[in-house]
Amino acid sequence: MNKHAIHHITEAPYAYGTGEKSLHLKLRTAKDDLKSVAVYFKDRYDWENEFDSIELKKANTSDLFDYYEIDIEVEEKRFRYFFELVDLEDNKYYLNERGLVDKKPSNPNAFQFPFLCKADLYKEVEWAQEGVVYQIFPDRFYNGDKNNDPKGTLPWGGKVTPETMFGGDLQGIINKVDYLSDLGVSILYMTPIFKSRSNHKYDTTNYYEIDPQFGDNETLRELVKKCHDNGIKVVLDAVYNHSGSDFFAFEDLVEKGEKSKYKDWYFVDSYPVDMEEVNYVTFANKVSRMPKLNTSNPEVRDYLLKVSKYWIEEIGIDGWRLDVCDEVDHAFWRDFKKAVKESKDDGFIIGEIMHESNSFLKGDQLDSIMNYPFRECCLDFFARKAINADELDHILAESRALYMNSVNRQLLNLIDSHDTARFLTECEGDKDKMKLAIALQYTYIGIPYIYYGDEIGMEGKNDPDCRRCMIWDKEKQDLDIFNLYKSLNDVRKKSKALVYGDYTNVCKDGMALGFIRSYKDEKVLVLINNNEDKYEYLLDMNGLAYDLYENKKQAIDGKIVLEPMSFKILKLS
Amino acid sequence: MNKHAIHHITEAPYAYGTGEKSLHLKLRTAKDDLKSVAVYFKDRYDWENEFDSIELKKANTSDLFDYYEIDIEVEEKRFRYFFELVDLEDNKYYLNERGLVDKKPSNPNAFQFPFLCKADLYKEVEWAQEGVVYQIFPDRFYNGDKNNDPKGTLPWGGKVTPETMFGGDLQGIINKVDYLSDLGVSILYMTPIFKSRSNHKYDTTNYYEIDPQFGDNETLRELVKKCHDNGIKVVLDAVYNHSGSDFFAFEDLVEKGEKSKYKDWYFVDSYPVDMEEVNYVTFANKVSRMPKLNTSNPEVRDYLLKVSKYWIEEIGIDGWRLDVCDEVDHAFWRDFKKAVKESKDDGFIIGEIMHESNSFLKGDQLDSIMNYPFRECCLDFFARKAINADELDHILAESRALYMNSVNRQLLNLIDSHDTARFLTECEGDKDKMKLAIALQYTYIGIPYIYYGDEIGMEGKNDPDCRRCMIWDKEKQDLDIFNLYKSLNDVRKKSKALVYGDYTNVCKDGMALGFIRSYKDEKVLVLINNNEDKYEYLLDMNGLAYDLYENKKQAIDGKIVLEPMSFKILKLS
Repeated sequence: MNKHAIHHITEAPYAYGTGEKSLHLKLRTAKDDLKSVAVYFKDRYDWENEFDSIELKKANTSDLFDYYEIDIEVEEKRFRYFFELVDLEDNKYYLNERGLVDKKPSNPNAFQFPFLCKADLYKEVEWAQEGVVYQIFPDRFYNGDKNNDPKGTLPWGGKVTPETMFGGDLQGIINKVDYLSDLGVSILYMTPIFKSRSNHKYDTTNYYEIDPQFGDNETLRELVKKCHDNGIKVVLDAVYNHSGSDFFAFEDLVEKGEKSKYKDWYFVDSYPVDMEEVNYVTFANKVSRMPKLNTSNPEVRDYLLKVSKYWIEEIGIDGWRLDVCDEVDHAFWRDFKKAVKESKDDGFIIGEIMHESNSFLKGDQLDSIMNYPFRECCLDFFARKAINADELDHILAESRALYMNSVNRQLLNLIDSHDTARFLTECEGDKDKMKLAIALQYTYIGIPYIYYGDEIGMEGKNDPDCRRCMIWDKEKQDLDIFNLYKSLNDVRKKSKALVYGDYTNVCKDGMALGFIRSYKDEKVLVLINNNEDKYEYLLDMNGLAYDLYENKKQAIDGKIVLEPMSFKILKLS
Repeated sequence: MNKHAIHHITEAPYAYGTGEKSLHLKLRTAKDDLKSVAVYFKDRYDWENEFDSIELKKANTSDLFDYYEIDIEVEEKRFRYFFELVDLEDNKYYLNERGLVDKKPSNPNAFQFPFLCKADLYKEVEWAQEGVVYQIFPDRFYNGDKNNDPKGTLPWGGKVTPETMFGGDLQGIINKVDYLSDLGVSILYMTPIFKSRSNHKYDTTNYYEIDPQFGDNETLRELVKKCHDNGIKVVLDAVYNHSGSDFFAFEDLVEKGEKSKYKDWYFVDSYPVDMEEVNYVTFANKVSRMPKLNTSNPEVRDYLLKVSKYWIEEIGIDGWRLDVCDEVDHAFWRDFKKAVKESKDDGFIIGEIMHESNSFLKGDQLDSIMNYPFRECCLDFFARKAINADELDHILAESRALYMNSVNRQLLNLIDSHDTARFLTECEGDKDKMKLAIALQYTYIGIPYIYYGDEIGMEGKNDPDCRRCMIWDKEKQDLDIFNLYKSLNDVRKKSKALVYGDYTNVCKDGMALGFIRSYKDEKVLVLINNNEDKYEYLLDMNGLAYDLYENKKQAIDGKIVLEPMSFKILKLS
């Protein structure tokens, strides 16, 4: 047995509550190295009875590791446990707090999960897991009210620069809710809509005011109502890492210097505050218009938490996406979570974190992140063909191992956003490649995500080019892609397995990927042939399946042949 | 290279701030498997410069693993980094977010520590690290005021049972502060002193009242003042997992049932509350007098936090030891930390957790725990001789790997307490064994800990026998052990290396242990010969050292011979 590979810790994602009495355990071993893994467990104050035992299931496999998992229960929610590992030669090892021993411990230094406290139990957001996100950059989606167009508004469809404005607004989105509804999305995420000087509005002037070029509270209220009436939840963008330099507190600081009562709202190196020299901490590298907020100052914290509660309670929004989330302190996000869930107990909290985020995703801070590592996989496998199906499968396996299963189902699996080149552009316009990436988005664990315009084949290089005006001229829209999204939204609505199911790989041969998502009695087979040629999947299955995408029966006789660059989603049971 | 052994995560204890700009990194590898490990790092927004690089140092080694560590700094506190691993055949591997790759990544999926937020930076408690704890069970230490003796007080030194009381009190401790001072301890920890019906007082009746059998606020104030005047800090015991059944809130609940406004202060299964049947959650197994408090109820939380602040602000105590800490929710302890540090920014927070406690010790909750795993090691190595020096060294190495280095220096390294048999009894009265364990306590990383009476050779089996009355009759005291403690307290006060130094093993041959603690220019060699025979330590050193314990020079000529069951503490530089 490979002893170095064995890993278990007594916290998420290796040990965490999945119910008020149910403890989820995970143990990592070297790949294909063991015959079985069992856990011995009992109440931590039980000095009389023998340990119960139950076998773990192999739930996940990467290139190096197998991950075994199980849920266990004890009446009093106080757990004591150790693992028994049986290797391929039937040798037994035991893992407890002190590490590996080769004799079954009579009085083990058992692992302890001392009490499954309800307060620490992570409550997943099921509506989000079942959803599909549509992201809008409001200035570029649709101009529904010419009266609020800012000075210098350019004609729709003009060339985008970091400064250009095109008049898109909330009324525009209201006018297009039917469009979103027809497409089948269920979560609308808008980049910032609060007052700010820029077109992107990531430099907030006033957290309590809708930017007049977008509308006002009443427009937002109407938008949220229309969305809710159409089964669409609304998520706003909270920019708390920094404010705009024309935010009242920073303006006061610039004016009054050290005497300002907002001195501790920012990080100033010297006085007077100098916006040319930028002698204060900002977002990124000396972006003078975005001074970094001191979120550990209780005044700042309270101010921002009030903002967060205000928009939920006043307008009824359903969640927040948190800009530059990972540069703000964990302590702030813990308070933020409390505040948000107090206002709406299933409010959805999404961090903008482009990297591994375990320290934010143990249940006490965020519900989800913008899953950029998923985009990286799609770029590598589909757009660049730089990794094969085996490598993709392994990277995804290690990603799943990072977080609690509930959190994995909530990650926003994007392929692009307002901060990246568009996926179709990364595919150099090859729509077949993009279609396969979309198929993976809709069939893999996590929330599918559409960046406005992707659904009609828009292109665009990095910011600002990826923020072009939405194309509404049907002649110029790619309705093929639109219909793909629409159909996949229907497929996903019909399949619990695609939302809640486990993932098991069944094929990773060159560029051919195949996996099964299974939930309770439902099994869905997903085949993605990322080859320029036909591919014959050899499968240990026979009989009739149902093609959820094509809406027809499909015979499987030990094999299925897929056309070049195509996919199938087959319901097996 | 053993790829399965490689481990790094972007949170404590593998990545954490050690200063406002300084990030501590740790990487685990298989033992003796690599030639070198380096980290490549730069600012996360630096798109122009090459990565800086620096080699990590091998800081710790267990039976399976090596742990490499380093501190890195970037000006803007926003880190991007990846590791370069060179194996014994000079093959290079790179570790980034996606795992191991064998080519140096040009645009790596680097690990990110996005911003070193001051609010998340763990502030260590230096006074605690330099301290020595003395634990007192107040009813059994010294009777300084006969007037407050409870009814039925037994004569000092009588047989102890779970119910017996002997009249020890705060005045008794005040009278003995000089004794503590002479012994050389610097942190006094008393088990609970708040009003309660029991002798141990773990069933609190009133969190705001000193038990009248111990004294009152004025007596405590005097005790704290006298301690402070003698350089001794005072830590009280907070019992927040449960209250006594005669605490006002539980009494109200018993009386008024479902109509009680304290209904949500506890976990009641059915009404009326039945203390015979025990239809409510308690500490351990149906201990009717200890109903478990609902610490996630904001009313309960606020009540207990006020208590915590009150005793710091009113009397000036220096810290809290938290009973049954691990069965209370993490959310509560996060709030507790904020409250305590608000009242006293270097207040010391110690959890009673007998097991691996990483989820409590990342900096947002506790400063320390009662280190029972250390006791287990001492029992196994010294008392039972069940493990050898090699095994001991490996277990200690893995323990050190669990926590931040600052936290390791703060763990309360006890060999016994009011909840265990006394160490001398575990040694079947063999004082030589106990003396070696004490030597390890004083020379290993962490805070030495004396349970009252250990210093004069008291014995006692498990609770209640380990809670016998302190022996004050000099004739019956073992002054030899007393002088050992006293001398070791002197030694530790003179050596920064014994407090802050790294640990490097230099000998683990059978039952002979040798290690060096080094801090800046200071190196201290510790030799512990746990053999019944003489042992000759072969050392790669020559010249004169200084024996800190014997206060004399010691020649080292490539070897030192130690008498059976003896130790040496030698200052090398």
